Amino acid sequence: MPSIPHIGSLPAGKRNAITDVPGVAVGHRTLDDHGVQTGVTVVRPHGGDPFRDKVPAAAVVLNGFGKSVGLVQVEELGVLETPIALTNTFSVGTVATAQIRSCVAANPESGRSLPTVNPLVFECNDGFLNDIQRLAVTEADYLQALAGAGADFEQGSVGAGRGMSSFQLKGGIGSASRRVPARHGGVHTVGALVLANYGRLPQLVLAGQAVGGHLATQLASHGAAPEPEKGSIIMLVATDAPLDARQLRRLALRAGAGLARTGSVFGHGSGDIALAFSTAYTVPDRVERPMPAMAMLHDGLLDEIFQAAADSTEQAIVHALWHATAVTGRDGHHRPALSELLPLSSFHSSFAGSRSSS
Amino acid sequence: MPSIPHIGSLPAGKRNAITDVPGVAVGHRTLDDHGVQTGVTVVRPHGGDPFRDKVPAAAVVLNGFGKSVGLVQVEELGVLETPIALTNTFSVGTVATAQIRSCVAANPESGRSLPTVNPLVFECNDGFLNDIQRLAVTEADYLQALAGAGADFEQGSVGAGRGMSSFQLKGGIGSASRRVPARHGGVHTVGALVLANYGRLPQLVLAGQAVGGHLATQLASHGAAPEPEKGSIIMLVATDAPLDARQLRRLALRAGAGLARTGSVFGHGSGDIALAFSTAYTVPDRVERPMPAMAMLHDGLLDEIFQAAADSTEQAIVHALWHATAVTGRDGHHRPALSELLPLSSFHSSFAGSRSSS
Amino acid sequence: MPSIPHIGSLPAGKRNAITDVPGVAVGHRTLDDHGVQTGVTVVRPHGGDPFRDKVPAAAVVLNGFGKSVGLVQVEELGVLETPIALTNTFSVGTVATAQIRSCVAANPESGRSLPTVNPLVFECNDGFLNDIQRLAVTEADYLQALAGAGADFEQGSVGAGRGMSSFQLKGGIGSASRRVPARHGGVHTVGALVLANYGRLPQLVLAGQAVGGHLATQLASHGAAPEPEKGSIIMLVATDAPLDARQLRRLALRAGAGLARTGSVFGHGSGDIALAFSTAYTVPDRVERPMPAMAMLHDGLLDEIFQAAADSTEQAIVHALWHATAVTGRDGHHRPALSELLPLSSFHSSFAGSRSSS
Amino acid sequence: MPSIPHIGSLPAGKRNAITDVPGVAVGHRTLDDHGVQTGVTVVRPHGGDPFRDKVPAAAVVLNGFGKSVGLVQVEELGVLETPIALTNTFSVGTVATAQIRSCVAANPESGRSLPTVNPLVFECNDGFLNDIQRLAVTEADYLQALAGAGADFEQGSVGAGRGMSSFQLKGGIGSASRRVPARHGGVHTVGALVLANYGRLPQLVLAGQAVGGHLATQLASHGAAPEPEKGSIIMLVATDAPLDARQLRRLALRAGAGLARTGSVFGHGSGDIALAFSTAYTVPDRVERPMPAMAMLHDGLLDEIFQAAADSTEQAIVHALWHATAVTGRDGHHRPALSELLPLSSFHSSFAGSRSSS
Repeated sequence: MPSIPHIGSLPAGKRNAITDVPGVAVGHRTLDDHGVQTGVTVVRPHGGDPFRDKVPAAAVVLNGFGKSVGLVQVEELGVLETPIALTNTFSVGTVATAQIRSCVAANPESGRSLPTVNPLVFECNDGFLNDIQRLAVTEADYLQALAGAGADFEQGSVGAGRGMSSFQLKGGIGSASRRVPARHGGVHTVGALVLANYGRLPQLVLAGQAVGGHLATQLASHGAAPEPEKGSIIMLVATDAPLDARQLRRLALRAGAGLARTGSVFGHGSGDIALAFSTAYTVPDRVERPMPAMAMLHDGLLDEIFQAAADSTEQAIVHALWHATAVTGRDGHHRPALSELLPLSSFHSSFAGSRSSS
Repeated sequence: MPSIPHIGSLPAGKRNAITDVPGVAVGHRTLDDHGVQTGVTVVRPHGGDPFRDKVPAAAVVLNGFGKSVGLVQVEELGVLETPIALTNTFSVGTVATAQIRSCVAANPESGRSLPTVNPLVFECNDGFLNDIQRLAVTEADYLQALAGAGADFEQGSVGAGRGMSSFQLKGGIGSASRRVPARHGGVHTVGALVLANYGRLPQLVLAGQAVGGHLATQLASHGAAPEPEKGSIIMLVATDAPLDARQLRRLALRAGAGLARTGSVFGHGSGDIALAFSTAYTVPDRVERPMPAMAMLHDGLLDEIFQAAADSTEQAIVHALWHATAVTGRDGHHRPALSELLPLSSFHSSFAGSRSSS
Repeated sequence: MPSIPHIGSLPAGKRNAITDVPGVAVGHRTLDDHGVQTGVTVVRPHGGDPFRDKVPAAAVVLNGFGKSVGLVQVEELGVLETPIALTNTFSVGTVATAQIRSCVAANPESGRSLPTVNPLVFECNDGFLNDIQRLAVTEADYLQALAGAGADFEQGSVGAGRGMSSFQLKGGIGSASRRVPARHGGVHTVGALVLANYGRLPQLVLAGQAVGGHLATQLASHGAAPEPEKGSIIMLVATDAPLDARQLRRLALRAGAGLARTGSVFGHGSGDIALAFSTAYTVPDRVERPMPAMAMLHDGLLDEIFQAAADSTEQAIVHALWHATAVTGRDGHHRPALSELLPLSSFHSSFAGSRSSS
Repeated sequence: MPSIPHIGSLPAGKRNAITDVPGVAVGHRTLDDHGVQTGVTVVRPHGGDPFRDKVPAAAVVLNGFGKSVGLVQVEELGVLETPIALTNTFSVGTVATAQIRSCVAANPESGRSLPTVNPLVFECNDGFLNDIQRLAVTEADYLQALAGAGADFEQGSVGAGRGMSSFQLKGGIGSASRRVPARHGGVHTVGALVLANYGRLPQLVLAGQAVGGHLATQLASHGAAPEPEKGSIIMLVATDAPLDARQLRRLALRAGAGLARTGSVFGHGSGDIALAFSTAYTVPDRVERPMPAMAMLHDGLLDEIFQAAADSTEQAIVHALWHATAVTGRDGHHRPALSELLPLSSFHSSFAGSRSSS
């Protein structure tokens, strides 16, 4: 079977997924019941409790038409302190509450004796396929996604990606990774995970190939009308390179370069947000515990890490599209899978060459 | 009865409250049941539906140890589109969901056909007096606060302010307003409303008087130990002056000057956030409706508006402290009222002169 | 003769240059004297004095490894008040001083009676070809570039672009424009002008074609070693659409999407800055003069403007590369022209299809 | 002789100046020749070459009506790499050029082989007393200020402060320091240095005392008309506490709290900028050199550091005003000294009590 094209010249990690960054785990809870096509995806940055051992992080808002929560405190303190949750727009409040309860249960003193926990929930709007007004996601769904998190996970129409659309096709969850040589031997790994729910079909560029026009013609022949940009994309970038919050903000921005290569211009109605975190060290919750004495990577060594962030983000989008399966949801709304309209074999035969081969 | 000292030289509006800005209304829902000492306060920017007629707005995060939601989109689009809600930290999710449901009910097409509504909920942590882990606030509480909004409203230990502490005293809701001459006759009004839950007592400066040391001694004689900075303050600034989002961000920052005068250094553990909005015009939800053709105020005329924002914010804090009544809450925790420890008559007799009299 | 490929599906303006935006003029002063290969390029936003009639503007720093001046005040006040100058890194001070003197001469009261003028000078480092330490640019050079500004201007190795390198090739000045249908008839024009001095050759994607590997092989066969990312790119976006500073910041960011499509990941050592301005209205210098009462474009109508900004920026980069002529500078350093290594006829024959044709 | 009142309860360092932070040195070059009343002040962060051993730093722009240069790169990279220079608005270009030449001379490879040096020059407008249009400051003046830098330095009407006005009085250079207990014994020192050129006299609050009305009456009796806010203030904060760029940005903001206490509302026409740096470690220029493996201070321990930044900034402003001597400059313009209008003995006798005594 022909393989999904590889973006760029850096090699992928073993799984070609964000979980190639040691310690990172991903779990899904998928709701698939007629008009309810939605879910929750959780990314755990490490195996411990991120409230106790906080994770350096920073976010960049490329386009802020979005309702994600938790970014104010991430910006101020440069850490995240819960698992990262992805869900639909209207379920942000419920999932945030679940994160709070979950943290309070594990750390009974939090909340009462300040400071409190900062939930971190990202969202895209899956209202085309999912009856979003039913607010179907429950706190239990978050817990279930969290409990099932592991190094191996599905991509495509699963978890928070269940109801997402991208380029008038089925979107959803995609992930990828890249490896870059480290200064003192070994490698650094950079991984990306996206929740793809964005894009105008005529602009779609897939692995360097401008396939959007071709696909738009196909869809039009089936009676589908062109649609304006809407939706959003959430891009998570993980690395085991030792970076501080300032450097992680730089890294997060490079996810936007990967996004732009797919044809996005960060549309007005799109919530395009990238968050980067490092697993190289943690920051303790209590002042009594020792702070890490870790040498950060010199900024002059970041270029390959930047390249890896852009490439793995673009690759993750490509994965989201090709792994997604068709979904029919509320009111019979339907999104076809890219793999039906443009099988990999057709892609390779019809769209000669590819950027990645250069 | 001696009056609360007046901050600065600009005159107050009729109510000396944010509701002196025409169209602005404030409502409370107060929960007072043993360990549950909390609530919701709602500020409506105008009498219509802010989703249809959006309100120009901008926020400044002075210290981002906070969990407020909605700021990402306010920053991007420069408008707010729901009433502004204030509540406790753990109830943000519930109140945000209530805002979504409320908007969806009034605008059935929102959500399903994107774009969706952006909830705007600010919070402070009232966990000292309130059993915050009980998540007592319901969606109905938000609706009740909204339904009761009007030009006249209580200050002190009410609504979202019910369980708040400030300078080891009872904090809560305060409001004030100032009037500045407009360029072409008439006046512009600037109003502030704060949710005060911040401050280290020894630093307290009240209407220019360094009363903190005196009060700390009093409290210590009753056995109260000094406490670190914690909590937060939310500062809302409204004006009828025609300002765009960029100018409103400038205005919001000046609330921080008023805050600093009270002795705050924007403590590490405090979520200090200011949001400013203008009622001079609205932005339509749909592109089909005409955009306002409104001449903004020249930036060169902003100095008195800035002064009014700083002065009305400081005055609102003074009001919050002097209007607050003592509250005993969860586990018998107690916060005394400033008016018990330092009655206005004592203030005027013991702390000679005042900045406002200069 | 084969034509330079057209990016995207929006039509170009008459000149396919930033000067298609009515009123915008561009002038160059080129210094070409052995080791001195540098210059100044000036973009005038309108035919009047921008100090008296200020121009709404906003900038986005994609990567801040740069020494441009003037951005602090543009961010605060949302206007520019001098022509925009481009030059080499070490000449920023001289050109800024020239802008100050020039403004003071035209507005004798400025400076003495505050407020003062805010110079706006962008830079890239042309130190590979140009003996930058000689600080060859004089104040007179700025004035000469300004005096010669017009609607028709050269691209490539001219003005500030004289000594610039891009993708190990000769870089420099490029420009392009796009037209988008306006809501009430007519069109809006979006124009871009870039100073291109960035890029790692293997990553180069030209009009959707991954030509970087091919060119790197060619250069290597001539003995050229691979080089790390260095340099910078300045991207100016002009439009006649009525946008305020908040919206112009959104627009400026979309230049970054165009940049990313060419293979940039906003390298660490690159100063990648975009500034957008609108010519639809001006802001008076004095509070006595009337403010514009102009209806801005609804944000919901920005998507095509965004597309135009990204497409015209990418096109401007393509123009900079294909218009540049080879330059030999200090110490015999040499940069070949893209047109020598990859003539347009070869491009069209060797790199089948193109994104723009989809 | 009565002493200048002490702000807050934290103790000052030995010199009560920014140079109490070990390694920090300050030098002035003062130009005093009839209409030319201006100069340069240089702050060296350590005794070495800051280009080779860069200093962690971050800035906050409270009001961006200013022309300072270098902030774009400080924001991106979180370091400064030249001494910090202060001068008048129109001399920024000249001083920046001097910094470049000076760095190039010491590091011949800089500039030619990128990356280049980032000059860091702050400014206020001294155009009331100084004939700013004469651009009297030369590159040699910068070098002279730098060469004379030491731990002991004058305050008031010296260096860049020579021509500055504040609250219609003579402003200029002020400095102060505070000591806070360190977690593991010893102390951290926080020092501030300000260039004060801001303020509306009626708002002046001096060491907690609202003296502005009194002084305005005095000045009016001498025929001085009230003046609008203009000018600016630059606030530098140094510390030997180990903080990264994110934390230093937090610290810089607290200088604004000190500023606000003096009566400032960050006026529209004022360039109010704060920069904080740490001397606890340096960042090497070359990737080959080892990065520091330094444990940063836990954010939970920052409150006293924040207090010290606010207090030392307010104290530095008080020092600037009381140390300034009267100056008569261009066209006979005159600024009286605070010490003439309000001698310290009068201050202590007339303005009972003080915030600092609480």
